[in-house]
Amino acid sequence: MFAPEKDVQSYIHFGLYALQHRGQESAGISISDGSDIKTKKKMGLVSEVFQGDTLENLSGYNAIGHVRYSTEGDSSVTNAQPLTITCKLGKISIVHNGNLKNAKGLRKRLEEEGTIFQTTTDSEILAHLLAKSSYNNIIDGLKEVASMMKGGYTFLLMTTDRLIAFRDAHGFRPLSLGKVDGGYVLSSETCAFDTIGAEYVRDISPGEMVVIDKQGITSTTLLEPKDPSLCIFEYIYFARPDSNLIGKNVHLVRKELGKELAKESNITADIVSGVPDSSLSAASGVAEALNLPYEMGLIKNRYIGRTFIKPNQEMRELGVQVKLNPVNATVFGKRIILVDDSIVRGTTITNIIKTLRDAGAKEVHILISSPPVKFPCYYGIDTSSCGELIASKLNVEEIRTEIGADSLQFLSIQGMVRAVERVPGLNENTGYCLACFNGEYPVTEED
Amino acid sequence: MFAPEKDVQSYIHFGLYALQHRGQESAGISISDGSDIKTKKKMGLVSEVFQGDTLENLSGYNAIGHVRYSTEGDSSVTNAQPLTITCKLGKISIVHNGNLKNAKGLRKRLEEEGTIFQTTTDSEILAHLLAKSSYNNIIDGLKEVASMMKGGYTFLLMTTDRLIAFRDAHGFRPLSLGKVDGGYVLSSETCAFDTIGAEYVRDISPGEMVVIDKQGITSTTLLEPKDPSLCIFEYIYFARPDSNLIGKNVHLVRKELGKELAKESNITADIVSGVPDSSLSAASGVAEALNLPYEMGLIKNRYIGRTFIKPNQEMRELGVQVKLNPVNATVFGKRIILVDDSIVRGTTITNIIKTLRDAGAKEVHILISSPPVKFPCYYGIDTSSCGELIASKLNVEEIRTEIGADSLQFLSIQGMVRAVERVPGLNENTGYCLACFNGEYPVTEED
Amino acid sequence: MFAPEKDVQSYIHFGLYALQHRGQESAGISISDGSDIKTKKKMGLVSEVFQGDTLENLSGYNAIGHVRYSTEGDSSVTNAQPLTITCKLGKISIVHNGNLKNAKGLRKRLEEEGTIFQTTTDSEILAHLLAKSSYNNIIDGLKEVASMMKGGYTFLLMTTDRLIAFRDAHGFRPLSLGKVDGGYVLSSETCAFDTIGAEYVRDISPGEMVVIDKQGITSTTLLEPKDPSLCIFEYIYFARPDSNLIGKNVHLVRKELGKELAKESNITADIVSGVPDSSLSAASGVAEALNLPYEMGLIKNRYIGRTFIKPNQEMRELGVQVKLNPVNATVFGKRIILVDDSIVRGTTITNIIKTLRDAGAKEVHILISSPPVKFPCYYGIDTSSCGELIASKLNVEEIRTEIGADSLQFLSIQGMVRAVERVPGLNENTGYCLACFNGEYPVTEED
Amino acid sequence: MFAPEKDVQSYIHFGLYALQHRGQESAGISISDGSDIKTKKKMGLVSEVFQGDTLENLSGYNAIGHVRYSTEGDSSVTNAQPLTITCKLGKISIVHNGNLKNAKGLRKRLEEEGTIFQTTTDSEILAHLLAKSSYNNIIDGLKEVASMMKGGYTFLLMTTDRLIAFRDAHGFRPLSLGKVDGGYVLSSETCAFDTIGAEYVRDISPGEMVVIDKQGITSTTLLEPKDPSLCIFEYIYFARPDSNLIGKNVHLVRKELGKELAKESNITADIVSGVPDSSLSAASGVAEALNLPYEMGLIKNRYIGRTFIKPNQEMRELGVQVKLNPVNATVFGKRIILVDDSIVRGTTITNIIKTLRDAGAKEVHILISSPPVKFPCYYGIDTSSCGELIASKLNVEEIRTEIGADSLQFLSIQGMVRAVERVPGLNENTGYCLACFNGEYPVTEED
Repeated sequence: MFAPEKDVQSYIHFGLYALQHRGQESAGISISDGSDIKTKKKMGLVSEVFQGDTLENLSGYNAIGHVRYSTEGDSSVTNAQPLTITCKLGKISIVHNGNLKNAKGLRKRLEEEGTIFQTTTDSEILAHLLAKSSYNNIIDGLKEVASMMKGGYTFLLMTTDRLIAFRDAHGFRPLSLGKVDGGYVLSSETCAFDTIGAEYVRDISPGEMVVIDKQGITSTTLLEPKDPSLCIFEYIYFARPDSNLIGKNVHLVRKELGKELAKESNITADIVSGVPDSSLSAASGVAEALNLPYEMGLIKNRYIGRTFIKPNQEMRELGVQVKLNPVNATVFGKRIILVDDSIVRGTTITNIIKTLRDAGAKEVHILISSPPVKFPCYYGIDTSSCGELIASKLNVEEIRTEIGADSLQFLSIQGMVRAVERVPGLNENTGYCLACFNGEYPVTEED
Repeated sequence: MFAPEKDVQSYIHFGLYALQHRGQESAGISISDGSDIKTKKKMGLVSEVFQGDTLENLSGYNAIGHVRYSTEGDSSVTNAQPLTITCKLGKISIVHNGNLKNAKGLRKRLEEEGTIFQTTTDSEILAHLLAKSSYNNIIDGLKEVASMMKGGYTFLLMTTDRLIAFRDAHGFRPLSLGKVDGGYVLSSETCAFDTIGAEYVRDISPGEMVVIDKQGITSTTLLEPKDPSLCIFEYIYFARPDSNLIGKNVHLVRKELGKELAKESNITADIVSGVPDSSLSAASGVAEALNLPYEMGLIKNRYIGRTFIKPNQEMRELGVQVKLNPVNATVFGKRIILVDDSIVRGTTITNIIKTLRDAGAKEVHILISSPPVKFPCYYGIDTSSCGELIASKLNVEEIRTEIGADSLQFLSIQGMVRAVERVPGLNENTGYCLACFNGEYPVTEED
Repeated sequence: MFAPEKDVQSYIHFGLYALQHRGQESAGISISDGSDIKTKKKMGLVSEVFQGDTLENLSGYNAIGHVRYSTEGDSSVTNAQPLTITCKLGKISIVHNGNLKNAKGLRKRLEEEGTIFQTTTDSEILAHLLAKSSYNNIIDGLKEVASMMKGGYTFLLMTTDRLIAFRDAHGFRPLSLGKVDGGYVLSSETCAFDTIGAEYVRDISPGEMVVIDKQGITSTTLLEPKDPSLCIFEYIYFARPDSNLIGKNVHLVRKELGKELAKESNITADIVSGVPDSSLSAASGVAEALNLPYEMGLIKNRYIGRTFIKPNQEMRELGVQVKLNPVNATVFGKRIILVDDSIVRGTTITNIIKTLRDAGAKEVHILISSPPVKFPCYYGIDTSSCGELIASKLNVEEIRTEIGADSLQFLSIQGMVRAVERVPGLNENTGYCLACFNGEYPVTEED
Repeated sequence: MFAPEKDVQSYIHFGLYALQHRGQESAGISISDGSDIKTKKKMGLVSEVFQGDTLENLSGYNAIGHVRYSTEGDSSVTNAQPLTITCKLGKISIVHNGNLKNAKGLRKRLEEEGTIFQTTTDSEILAHLLAKSSYNNIIDGLKEVASMMKGGYTFLLMTTDRLIAFRDAHGFRPLSLGKVDGGYVLSSETCAFDTIGAEYVRDISPGEMVVIDKQGITSTTLLEPKDPSLCIFEYIYFARPDSNLIGKNVHLVRKELGKELAKESNITADIVSGVPDSSLSAASGVAEALNLPYEMGLIKNRYIGRTFIKPNQEMRELGVQVKLNPVNATVFGKRIILVDDSIVRGTTITNIIKTLRDAGAKEVHILISSPPVKFPCYYGIDTSSCGELIASKLNVEEIRTEIGADSLQFLSIQGMVRAVERVPGLNENTGYCLACFNGEYPVTEED
């Protein structure tokens, strides 16, 4: 966020609350008053990282913030963002969303050239590339090195007096531009704009770079745009329901996914429920289309913190389940249609089905508001969770048996795209990355 | 919880997670291994109070736990429960839910008799009464003093080797009995039983006392039962949707309240939404009855902790709102029916209506799934929040103007009772306390 | 502290730093602005309890503070002081130093009368006695109940607008009065006066009560003074070297103890060292009297916090010792006189002697600047540590063998008293409690 | 520390306690079990950084640790050590003590070559140099780059299975080698060896590199040794009294400094005192040489933590002083010789003199056990504190007036060296760096 007449610290802080669902492992803010960049980052939720006096010492008109997704391997403050470095281009802070597909190759090459790595983040790769560019200004440097980075990503960089953002050539990961009084703000999701009272302006285009400073905003084509390929999983699972991506509202898309799913299905049941929270919109779409009662079949405990000590195996066998409880009265004796957004490994849904049966459900029919996830993602979704994709090993009937459902139906790829396209948006010719469903990856190593 | 063959610590701990919605200010556990009672309590959520090593030193087969509701005046660890005391009856730990109507009078009398108070809790009043009883055993002591305590309450007491529970003569506040392998568990809400794998047995009757020890469970009539008067607000707002009170499921009751509300109303609109989370069940009932789309019109931020630093007035005027955001795409250009469970002071709903209008709602019609709250509660609901009851000063049309709604409709008292009675339960002749709606208080000072 | 023109919060806070050596388990402050008393207390050092925002909400002109000594049994925040209660006399906060000898009997009697105890502190006993007195004002109440309390103690009480202090009839535990601009301050040790810039006025007399309010200070004889019996261990070990008790400086007394000890001894050695920190003054007195070099033979680690995880037995056997290290170069090949203030259980000195021998000391001669502690203390010193008094079981030669010293000499009782009396003071006819040395207890149960 | 048969975690942990006086800002440990290096570091004391579960996940046979000195500019966890990086040589952890004199030049050159910096530490400079060396193994790499680094430093590096240490060519900063059962340990001070039960072997020589792995220890000359120039300030102020540097004990050196100082002085006084803690050894030397009583004139509060909120100016004027108190009884009416180790800015000693006068001291004579510090240090002492050297602006008489002493005497340079040389050691031909006193810097930029 860049707004010369404001102290942007509170805006960034509240904006991170709005984006907290995108990452709960660590949070950080870099902020500049025009003369120096200060960075604070720590493990934990935004509410844990920025307490009382932590924010006191942060003020300025130019800032970036980040919440990090908890992946297995590298859970430490070292990898928390923003990454702030000093190099021949001065002091720079960097955050990113997404993944470099060729990160491994770039790291190897850089290491061979004598580079040291202190983190395992892609932001550090960009920092090295920039510092080694043949230019002595950051804009030209970015132009030189951007094409070396393959994959699906958005980057935000700040110097003491400039804010820079760019998006990969396919536009895999979302990035929107908003306006506040006297300045601009960039965010992965538009819900952050609503939270801080900013006005949505437009999405950053694939391959576009914007530079914001006291002179205003300028736009450049950093990378020749390729076929637009917005990650469709943002609609299905990642984004907050009140966000809009290329103008299409996430809740409305999910509801259409539910309606389309109902159309493709021919299940008879007594009630429809969704797995909270991400599947509730789709479930209400299914209920509406099938004209069945939409019920609260499961309830999620809102008070389970990051440090929650889970029940052990023995206690779970004795029926202890703290995170998700069935609403027995709703479920008992009923034929239930349970809507979930996706099946990745299949363990969660297996537990839920068992829970519902224990609570007396007569039949449990699973409707999934996306197609089977068969292929790993190279553009920003945690690949560790894609490592054991149940749908890459089993067919639908085998999955049904494995998870213990009375029936199981996935939305078709065509149905999914149809549903998304039905919702009005701003950029009707945008395509979607469907690689995790159909294996057609828009980016190749040689790309 | 009393279970001689188990270490009940984890069960109590997980059970408190399930009851966290009833109080977020402080949490505590008292536990006995048969020889001594240990008590741990602290300000904060269950997840904050019981971390790592805190639980290590707590183990035993007999325990009680508590989560405390945040009221303005006495927010300090001194008032956290359980209260553990030593007296001629030995070491006793006490927790309670609800309020003594005659607390002030009892405290005054006790102080005049030379008693000191270290807290402002009703548990301490019971402790003093017990210690001053003419008996040297706790059961006879309770029989002697129970009738001195007027109001709506449930108490749990434990000695090193006994667990005792009782409920006021009207049964204002809920209390249920569950069974675990080799033992028993008591809880204000049945959702705690589901969480820890306990089986629901029955509700404790108004005026009933149960005593659990290694010999088993015994039941006594401690107070002559009066007209049963379960607090109907438990259904409307307090309880978790998956809990059952006298066998009636809270979610189903709320849905019926919504349906009844729809019947009494004659609004035309495009969509129906509820204020998350407690009004979602009622809202889906309204939508179903009116055959209108049930939409997510508002979204609640799940990551706002206890220590959240709220936006200041200036920022709020600039549109900063972190807790509750409208789903613009759902709301824009729509005639919306917004369902809320109750109006107490009216400030929250006023903000929400403004928010929806700013998001482009064409019309905002407010349906409240309970009647106007006109009278303060003396039996356990925070009276400070009842101090400025908007409905005791203004009529419905005046409230509508005040909150800025296009229309406003409350559920009728008869409709509310009809809806609750429609849901199947276990004890069909139970009556309800409606005092906050109609001013008819079941308990008088002389009672 | 009472000072109507000041916010006394910082003074109390800094004063507690000066008294921290008297107790490291918990700390607390009660403060009143004339209308209400607020109390904050927590486990931990003053620096841990009062951080940033904790102090913000505490302000007023009347306050008491406390640091609690860590005893084994009851280490919990429940016992932290001040104790704040409400009774027929209003709101009262109480702290105390010392012990009631008849606490057990008083508790038993009070419990039989129907009293509950929430702590195991003597302050709570006084609170109950006061609340049960036949008077409705605190001064008359104190006069009535003071004589019921046997033992060695000082109490400070505050109401919203008065500060009251009294000392037992023998004056076992110290209590001094100081003056600040526009007000008064009371402290167990005068070092707190120096810390906050207060001027020492006088010691509170045995049996005296002072009452401070906006009208000034008044003095009353609360208890008929008995033979003055100041705990001589305050000089030997407890007090800070810069404090004066009845005008006698602690450092100077310790130095005289050392000189007296040197006189009674006839050891030849190369150097003199003291066990840090409490024995350094005595050691320098020994060195001076014997005209031997005063050397640093041991060094104490200053950074060992409350939560220090001690080396386990195996590591200790491998030579790991973090708290106290020998200065090898000083000790190697030397005949060393090591001065310690007292021997209670004998474990610490045994380890130290072994350490010095491992470091190459040729001879280790132990001089103790007090007589053998043979009898438990009932007036304020942790009796748990007196439970296993090595000198009550073994004679000096046996102790010498047990601890592994080349020689061992205790100061004689007469020598000790002589040394103390040699230092100039204010109240030359004061006697001392020598009960832990000679078993002559100034207070009896019937007293 | 490297010890294949041990879990070295506790040793490193306890060793850091022994070195805590060298830095209180942050602490960290890197440890390897042979397969991977784990690093934990945080702001705070050792006792704050390594609590309970933090140590649980650290175990291995090869480890390095660090405590960081609090300098003004860069107080953040980013600069905490060890620094752990990945490069073509694999994973490496680095700590250092001291300063590179040519750090600025090296950073500039490296930045121009396209390097990024994430910290402002010299360890990061070494990491970059190593990664860019023309060798693919760390030993040859070090040989290549060591000569690029000018200044006074010691470095410890570890890979997963090797521990490497080296010292600059002049040996400015100390580094000793110790032996434990089955392994070796390196430390800036020998007091850490005593703490963990290790046996002192020898000092690492100037310019020497040692490599420790499962095959044992090997020594190499990394840099051609120059004139040995141990920082004499280590004796005067930095080191713990029980440490030995090149075999000379710090306490004994300080005592000799005091004796020499007495010899050079001709003051008459009643008592001698030292400023605690670092000047106590010298003060006892002065007292002994002058045959005057050695008294405790000042007492230091041991409980002032890192987060201590200092009294504000107004309170200080009212006499509030928490850190250091005069022992009034010792000082009152006395002519006092106060010994301090050095005068840098002069503010502390000015306050102390005022304090002693307020406490009634008749005369205050200041003896400084080192010469006037006139020149900034480039080899490891915080240069920010050398920025405003009072002795570079004023002569002795002017300083005396400024600080308000009755007389002021510094030790002569010759006297200081004489005193140090008088104490027996291991390496009699070692010279000392006296640059801060005489401006003769052993290292030049071109060196």
